Amino acid sequence: MDMDREIFEGLLSAREFKAVRSILNVMNAVDIAVLLSELEDKELVLAFRLIPKDKAADVFANMDGNQQSDLVEMFTERELKVILDELFMDDTVDLLEDLPANLVTRILEAVDPEKRNKINVLLNYPDDSAGSIMTTEYVDLRKHTTVAQALMHIKRVGIHKETIYTCYILEHRRLVGIVTAKDLLTMDDDITMEEIMETEIKSVSTHTDQEEVVQLFRKYDLLALPVVDADNLMVGIVTVDDAIDVMVDEVTEDISKMAAVNPSEESYFDTSVFQHAKNRVPWLLFLMLSSTVTGILITNYEKAFEAVPLLVSFIPMLMGTGGNCGSQSSALIIRGIALDEIHFKDIFRAMFKEFRVSIVVGVILAIANGIRILIMYQDPLIAVVVGCSLIVTIIISKLIGCVLPLLAQKINIDPAIVSAPIISTLVDTCSILVFFNIATMILPQL
Amino acid sequence: MDMDREIFEGLLSAREFKAVRSILNVMNAVDIAVLLSELEDKELVLAFRLIPKDKAADVFANMDGNQQSDLVEMFTERELKVILDELFMDDTVDLLEDLPANLVTRILEAVDPEKRNKINVLLNYPDDSAGSIMTTEYVDLRKHTTVAQALMHIKRVGIHKETIYTCYILEHRRLVGIVTAKDLLTMDDDITMEEIMETEIKSVSTHTDQEEVVQLFRKYDLLALPVVDADNLMVGIVTVDDAIDVMVDEVTEDISKMAAVNPSEESYFDTSVFQHAKNRVPWLLFLMLSSTVTGILITNYEKAFEAVPLLVSFIPMLMGTGGNCGSQSSALIIRGIALDEIHFKDIFRAMFKEFRVSIVVGVILAIANGIRILIMYQDPLIAVVVGCSLIVTIIISKLIGCVLPLLAQKINIDPAIVSAPIISTLVDTCSILVFFNIATMILPQL
Repeated sequence: MDMDREIFEGLLSAREFKAVRSILNVMNAVDIAVLLSELEDKELVLAFRLIPKDKAADVFANMDGNQQSDLVEMFTERELKVILDELFMDDTVDLLEDLPANLVTRILEAVDPEKRNKINVLLNYPDDSAGSIMTTEYVDLRKHTTVAQALMHIKRVGIHKETIYTCYILEHRRLVGIVTAKDLLTMDDDITMEEIMETEIKSVSTHTDQEEVVQLFRKYDLLALPVVDADNLMVGIVTVDDAIDVMVDEVTEDISKMAAVNPSEESYFDTSVFQHAKNRVPWLLFLMLSSTVTGILITNYEKAFEAVPLLVSFIPMLMGTGGNCGSQSSALIIRGIALDEIHFKDIFRAMFKEFRVSIVVGVILAIANGIRILIMYQDPLIAVVVGCSLIVTIIISKLIGCVLPLLAQKINIDPAIVSAPIISTLVDTCSILVFFNIATMILPQL
Repeated sequence: MDMDREIFEGLLSAREFKAVRSILNVMNAVDIAVLLSELEDKELVLAFRLIPKDKAADVFANMDGNQQSDLVEMFTERELKVILDELFMDDTVDLLEDLPANLVTRILEAVDPEKRNKINVLLNYPDDSAGSIMTTEYVDLRKHTTVAQALMHIKRVGIHKETIYTCYILEHRRLVGIVTAKDLLTMDDDITMEEIMETEIKSVSTHTDQEEVVQLFRKYDLLALPVVDADNLMVGIVTVDDAIDVMVDEVTEDISKMAAVNPSEESYFDTSVFQHAKNRVPWLLFLMLSSTVTGILITNYEKAFEAVPLLVSFIPMLMGTGGNCGSQSSALIIRGIALDEIHFKDIFRAMFKEFRVSIVVGVILAIANGIRILIMYQDPLIAVVVGCSLIVTIIISKLIGCVLPLLAQKINIDPAIVSAPIISTLVDTCSILVFFNIATMILPQL
C-alpha cells in the first residue's frame, strides 16, 4: 500500500494515534522508512514509537544516517537497547560507521559486552572488504545432526538469524559443508547433515575485496556466502541483499570515475555543493592543464593554418571523433574487466580486435567526411588529408582506449579511472600531431 | 575446486572416463560449464554425457548459446527430453530465444503439450518485461493450509520448484498472501497460512519493465517477486538470481549508451568486428557531422584568430573543459535517475545545484588558468577573456548536462543516451561562441 505522506503527517500532527498505528500496522518496514523520511525530531520519535514492535528495528535499519542519529539521540536507554538487540550485526556496524563519535559511545555502552566485542572486530575490517559487509548471525549445525534435529534447531534459533536458507556445517569452527533449507525441507527426517551436505564450498576470507564477493554471487547465483578468517575458521556470512547493495554502489562508483568525478558516498541531492565541487575540480584541473599542451601544440602549426585557414575548421571534428572513439573502446573494456570477461592476458587479442574495428569505422567515417568536403569545398586534396588523419586518429584512439584500462588493472589501479576524459585529452594531442603532419606531407602549400 | 582445463581436456581425449566422471562428480554446475566452455562437437557431447544426471540440466543452463545449440543438435530424442524436463521454465525460454529456428522446432516437439503451451505464452511477452524473465514454477498454497500440511506439500513438490523460499497463497488463482519458508520453519504445526501470511504484497504485472522489477528487488531486499496477469491472476515469479542478471545487463547497456555505443547482447569478445563497428559507427557519424558545425563556426572567426593567433591555442582547453564538466553532471544525473533518486519534478532543484557547483568550479579553474596565462604570456587581458569564457562555458555545460537527461526521461527516451558524447558536441559549439564573443567584447584588437 502506498500511503500518501501528507495525509499521514496530517494524522500524526492531529495526534490521531489510532489511525497512525493502524496504517503502520499494515505497511512494510521499507515503505514506513520512506513515509517517515521527511519527519524530524519530536514528530519522528513520536511516529517511531507507534511502529509495531516487530517492525521497529527493520524500519530503523532502512532509515538514512541523519534520521538514525536523530533517533539515537532522543531514544531512552531502554528504547535504544531494544532496537540494538533486534538489529542485525551488519546493520549495527553500518549505523556505527555513520554516527558521530558521542553517539557511537552511547551505543557501545548500551549493548552487552559480548556483542560489543563482535562489533569492534567488525569495525576493524578494511572498508570494502568481505569482513566489513558480513553479518555474524547464521545457522551452524554439526555433521551428525539429522534433518529432524536441524529443523528443530532452526525453529528454536532461526528467527533471530539474518538468513536461515543456507546452514553451515562446522567441525571445530571450521566450515566443512553446506546444507540448504531446501534440502532440509525435502529430505527425510533421519538423514544426517554429513550425507546431504555440499562439500565443494565457495567461501571468501574477511579481507577479500567486496567486488570479488559480488562476482561470486553473480556467477554462482548464491543467496549467502560464508566468510572465513585467516585460520580458516568461519566468522560470518554475506547475504544476497547486501551483495546487491554493494553491486549498485560499485557501479555508481565506476560511472562516477568514468566521468572524472571522485565518487561520493551520498546520493546526488544529499551531497553538498562544495562536496560536489571538491569531487569534480581535481580532475578538471588536471585535464585542463593537460589540454593546454594540445593548445600550445596548435600554436606550433600557426604557419600551416595561416597558409590554409580551412584546416582549423577540421580540428573540433578530428579531436571530437578521436575522443569519442577512445571512450567507446575504453567503456567496453572497462565494463568487460568489471564483469570478469576481459583480463590482462587478453590484451593482444583485444588490441587486434580494436584495430580491425578501427579500420572498418575509420574507412566509413573518412568516406562520409570526404563526400561532405567535396560537396562543400570541391577540394579533393583536403578530403584526402582529413580522411587519412581520421583513420590514423581512430586507430590510435581505439588502441589507447583499449590498452590503458588493461594496464591500469594490471598495476592495481581502478580501470574506470582511465576512462573517457583522460583518453580524450591524450587523443586530442595525438589527433593534432597526426593532422598537421599528414597535411604537411600532402598539401603543396605547406 | 578449480580444475585445470588442460588436464581435464587431456583426460577426456585419453578417454579416461572414470577420472573425468569423478572430477565432474565433485564440481558444481557453474564451474563445469566453464570447464567445458572450450570444447566442441564430439568432445563436448562426450563430456556432457559423463556429467552426473542431477547436475546435467543445470550445467546446460549455464552454457553459452553456441554450445547449447551444438548440444541440442547432437542429442538423441531421449537425451533432449530428459534435459528439457529438468530445465526450469525461464531457462528453457532463454534457450529458445537464442536457438536457430530448426532447433526451436525440435525442442517444441520434444516437450509435452502442456509445457509447450506455457513456453509459447512466455515467448510472447515483450523483451525486457517481467513476463519474459519470470518462471512459472512456484509453490502455491491455500489459506486454510496448516504449517504441517505446507511442509508436507513442499516435501512432495518442492524439489522441482525454482524457489521454495517464498510460498504464494492463492484463492481462485488470485494472489492473496505470502508466506516465507522462514515462517514455515519457525511457526507451530497447526497454524494456518491465513494466520501468518503477509497480505501487503509487492507484485508486478507481466508487462512491467524489467528495470522496475530490479528496483523492487533492490528496495525491498526480495528473494522472489510474484508476477500477475492483466486479470490479476498469478502467473509466475521472478527470482533474485535472475534479477541480478537483469541488473548487470541494464548497467552494461547504460555504460555502453553513455559511451555512444549501441548495446550488444554478447560479451566483448563474442561480438564480431563488424557488429562492433555497426554498434559504434551511427553515433560517430552523427557526432562527427555535428562537430562539423563547430568547425564551420570557427572559420567565421577567422579574422579574430588572425589578429590574435594566441586565441586558437585556448580552444582545445575550453572545449575539453566544457565537455568534461557536462559529462560529469550528466553522468551523476543519469545514475541518479537509474537509482530512482532523481525525478523530473526535481529538475529545478538539480539545475540550481548544478548552477552553484558551476560557480565554485568555474572560479577555481579560471583562477588556476589565469595564473598560468600570466606566467606564460604576461597578458592580463587574455587571462580575463579566457577566465570569463571558462566560467560561462562551465555554467552552460553543467546546466545542459543536468537538463538533457531529465528531459529525455520525461519523453521516455533512455537518459543514458544523452550522455557525454552528445553533450560534449553541444558544449563545443557553445564554448566557441562564448569565447569569441567575450574576446570581441574585451580585446581592443578585435
